[in-house]
Order: sequence, then C-alpha cells, then structure tokens
Amino acid sequence: MSDDAAAAGRHHLLTEQVVASFADAPSSRVREIMQSLVRHLHAFATEVRLTEAEWATGVDVLTRAGRITDERRQEFVLLSDVLGLSMLTIGLNEPADPAVTASTVFGPFFVADSPLVATGGDLAAGAAGRPCWVDVTVAGTDGAPISGARVDVWEADEDGFYDTQYEGHRVAGRGHLFSDDAGRVLFWSLRPTAYPIPADGPVGDLLAAAGRGPMRPAHIHFMISAAGYRTLTTHVFAAGDPHLDDDAVFGVRTALIADFVEHPPGTAPPGGPVDAPWSSLTYPFVLEKLPLP
Amino acid sequence: MSDDAAAAGRHHLLTEQVVASFADAPSSRVREIMQSLVRHLHAFATEVRLTEAEWATGVDVLTRAGRITDERRQEFVLLSDVLGLSMLTIGLNEPADPAVTASTVFGPFFVADSPLVATGGDLAAGAAGRPCWVDVTVAGTDGAPISGARVDVWEADEDGFYDTQYEGHRVAGRGHLFSDDAGRVLFWSLRPTAYPIPADGPVGDLLAAAGRGPMRPAHIHFMISAAGYRTLTTHVFAAGDPHLDDDAVFGVRTALIADFVEHPPGTAPPGGPVDAPWSSLTYPFVLEKLPLP
Repeated sequence: MSDDAAAAGRHHLLTEQVVASFADAPSSRVREIMQSLVRHLHAFATEVRLTEAEWATGVDVLTRAGRITDERRQEFVLLSDVLGLSMLTIGLNEPADPAVTASTVFGPFFVADSPLVATGGDLAAGAAGRPCWVDVTVAGTDGAPISGARVDVWEADEDGFYDTQYEGHRVAGRGHLFSDDAGRVLFWSLRPTAYPIPADGPVGDLLAAAGRGPMRPAHIHFMISAAGYRTLTTHVFAAGDPHLDDDAVFGVRTALIADFVEHPPGTAPPGGPVDAPWSSLTYPFVLEKLPLP
Repeated sequence: MSDDAAAAGRHHLLTEQVVASFADAPSSRVREIMQSLVRHLHAFATEVRLTEAEWATGVDVLTRAGRITDERRQEFVLLSDVLGLSMLTIGLNEPADPAVTASTVFGPFFVADSPLVATGGDLAAGAAGRPCWVDVTVAGTDGAPISGARVDVWEADEDGFYDTQYEGHRVAGRGHLFSDDAGRVLFWSLRPTAYPIPADGPVGDLLAAAGRGPMRPAHIHFMISAAGYRTLTTHVFAAGDPHLDDDAVFGVRTALIADFVEHPPGTAPPGGPVDAPWSSLTYPFVLEKLPLP
C-alpha cells in the first residue's frame, strides 16, 4: 500500500471514529443530526484537501462573526442566509400544498415587541421613503377569511436601513396589526427599495471574495400567525426590481413578487400624503390550517 | 409530479443556484472551497430534513460560542476539535513519510510569546504536579541532529488546568527552548495528567447531548520549528492513561504514546526534587525537510 493510500485509509478511519462517538447520544435525533453533520463536514474537508491556513481562516471568520454579533446584529444568521442554508431550511419545512403562500427568509432584523398599529395607521412612523398604502388579506386554503390574525410587518427605509441599524433606539418601519372580520389589514407604510445586507463584517468579506454583490431586491417582511394555522414568514417583493435575480440571500420566489402601483399626488386615502406621489400594494396571504391536536 | 417531488426539485435548484453564485470568485481556490462547502452543507440539511427549530439551535450554538470566545478561550477551535475536523485537517496536510513524527491537534491553549527556558531549567515555573525530567531530541529523517530548533512546550497542571485558564496573568507549565548541537533539549516540567476540556460552554453542552465525555488523556504539547524544516505540532501522550481510547478531540496516535518513567525520591538530576518522587520522559522527534525554495 502506498503512503497516500495509507493516509486516505487513516482519514476514513478518523471520520468513522468521530461518527461512532455520537452513537450513544440519548436522543436519536441528536445522533442522526450529528452523525450526518460529521460525515458531510469531513467529506467537504477531504474533498478540497483543506489546508491548515484555510482551516484557520474558517475559525477566524466564525470568531469575527461572534465578535460583531449582539442584540441588534446577527452575523451567523446572515452567514446562513448568504450560503442559502436559511432558504433551504425554510423550503424543507414549508407546507407541500402550493395553495399556501410561499415562505422566505426570516432575516436578522425582526424585533419581537414591535408597536401595535391601528387600522389605517402609519407603520412608517417617520422612516424616510415614499408612502405606500398596504391592503392585504389573510385567508385559509378554503378561501375563508381569518380574523384576528397577528400580522407583523418590518421593512428598511429609502436609505436601505432598518430602524435597528441606526444609533439610539429608533422604532420605525416596523409594527403589528390584527386582521378584521374580513381577514383584512390596512395601513400606511413605505414603498420598499433595494438595499445591501450589512457588508462591514466577515459575511461582507466573504461576498467580496466570492465576487458576489450584497444587494437584496426591494421587499416588505411579513410574519402572520393565527390560532390553528401554521405561522407564515415571508416577504412581498417589488415587481421590476433589478435585483430579483441576484438576491444576496436567495429569498426571491415568483409567487411573492407583486406590483407596487404608483399614484399621483392628491389621490391618497386618509392618512396619506396630500401633495406627494404614493404607492399601493394589495396581496392575498393564504395560511395552512394545522391538524387538530 | 407529486407535491413532494416538486419540493425536492425546488431544493435541488436552490442548491445549484447557491453553488452558481460562487462561480465568478476571482480566486479559483475560493470558488472550489465555497462550492464544495455549499453542496455538503445543503446535503446535510436535506438528508436530516433540518427543522427551523434545529437550525435556530445551530445559530444559538455559534452565537454562544462567539460570546465565550476571547483572547484566552477559543470555543470555535474546541468545536472543530470535538467534531474531529481539526484532526482531519492535520492528517490531510501532514507529510506522507511515516518516518516523520506524527502531528496532532494544536488545541486552544498555545500562547505565542512563552518564556525562554534555559537548558536544564524548570518550565513548570510553579505549576502544581510531579516533577518530570524531559530529555528529547530533534532530528531529520536522515537521522542528523537539528541544532537551534525552537521547541515550544505547554501543558496542564495536576488539577487539569493550563495557566491561561486561571484568573490573573499566570505563566506556568509553558515555555520554549532551543536544541543544542546534538539536537537535544533538556528541562524540568510536570508529569502530565488527564483533564477535561472546558465544558462550561456550548461545546460542553454538545458533548453532554452526545453522551460523550470531555476527558483528554495526559499529554505534553510540543511545537518544533527549524529553518528548512516543516514545523511539527504534536503531543507526547502518557502510556497507560485510561483515556487513550476516548480522547474528546481524537488526537491520540499510537506513535505519540511514550512511557513516563517513575523514579524514587533522592535520585533526581540537578534542579529536581531532593526528597520526592519524579518522572522522566525521553522522546525522539523527527522533522520533515522542506524542499529548497
């Protein structure tokens, strides 16, 4: 046997030894996940013949991601996003029924305790951008409206920043409402614009090394939950956006692209601008009914 | 096509889309590594059908690892160690020549600027444990001694802790020497003892969930560098240690196991204990000559 063949045999034995070390995990699911993770991690390193310097670069990327992560910045989620792992996980878990609204990435900018916005109120709350009248419905796959659904909404301003990316404790472009008896939710917000994901950390360095852009096409985040239904986490994307085909986090799905209709000044519903142009969005969300427990 | 088959096709398309996003990386090596990483990461998630809660657990493990990592604690290296990735990477890169001393894990406890220890001096520097006279040689594969090699040494005390794991800025059980004209290095240190890796962070939680122990068999770390030779990073393990077969980081290799010989009081070389038992270790290190540039 050649020295190289002997070495390959040693690497294989090591992988099997590590896999075996998880054989006694009390939870069979932990065992399944860790053994699969070890096999794929080792297969990756073996396939590319990872050097020690490259391994150290990987450790450094994770260390820097840890250093930049805090309550307002989640670099590990961003890393998962740009590697397509977030979107894959969402796809693996979403309902098979194509009538249900497609899911997409959660992203790092959700805040759990957003303000309650009254029907017809202004969720932008001072965030800069073109006003947008949002008129969406929440229904089951049978078409029946769902009343009392909690609709969480968050979006970036026209400069491409979420409120949490500013110094201080700004809360803007973010809020939640509850659907009425017709399953309807109405509010003012902003016409979204394309923006780059935060590129000043290790994920930004990775995108640069990959020759990839950091842009996400314009979108509004929605998370919709209602008793008896599977919570939907998704976006509505703006039709015509130049970045629909190169979303940095692979979140775009055709069924989630909608027209943001433009309107001239002087035609806005109450609460809208009197002498400025505005946009409007309508979108029908469909939730999956959960089986009775 | 069934809904399930359609979903499987969608997941595959997503993976290919993410792989393609790295196609224009300016460095062909970055392209190779990232495309392989994406394929294996996606294959793992797809194989186990990773749930969103499990994905969130993974993000939480990395976030907590980031929070606990600082100049003195490197949880990402520890994570790589317990997954066998560190040892695999070392194996993939070590010389094929079996005459060269085997490498093993670097570990998280190395410090770059350790004190210089004189020949015959005491590297323990107050760390608790049984004194051990260390007498090692450094040679090439042709048997010729290597003089002036830098030999870095670090080890835990008898309580199982490295100096950096104590509060304050203790420096003990750590130092470096240079080999003499016969390639020899002589110093007092400690008979090593088995110890647990730090188990108070997410890596400890992972080991507990896996039903794995945190112990490492007794060992002394060596890093040996000399001009014209490949730097060797390794340990010498104590023969007879009960944890040689379940090292938490998979670092044991048969050729690195050596006898620590026990001696009665009153027989120690100069600098050793007068009326206490002591140990001794001899070990012949062999380095790989690098090709001339």
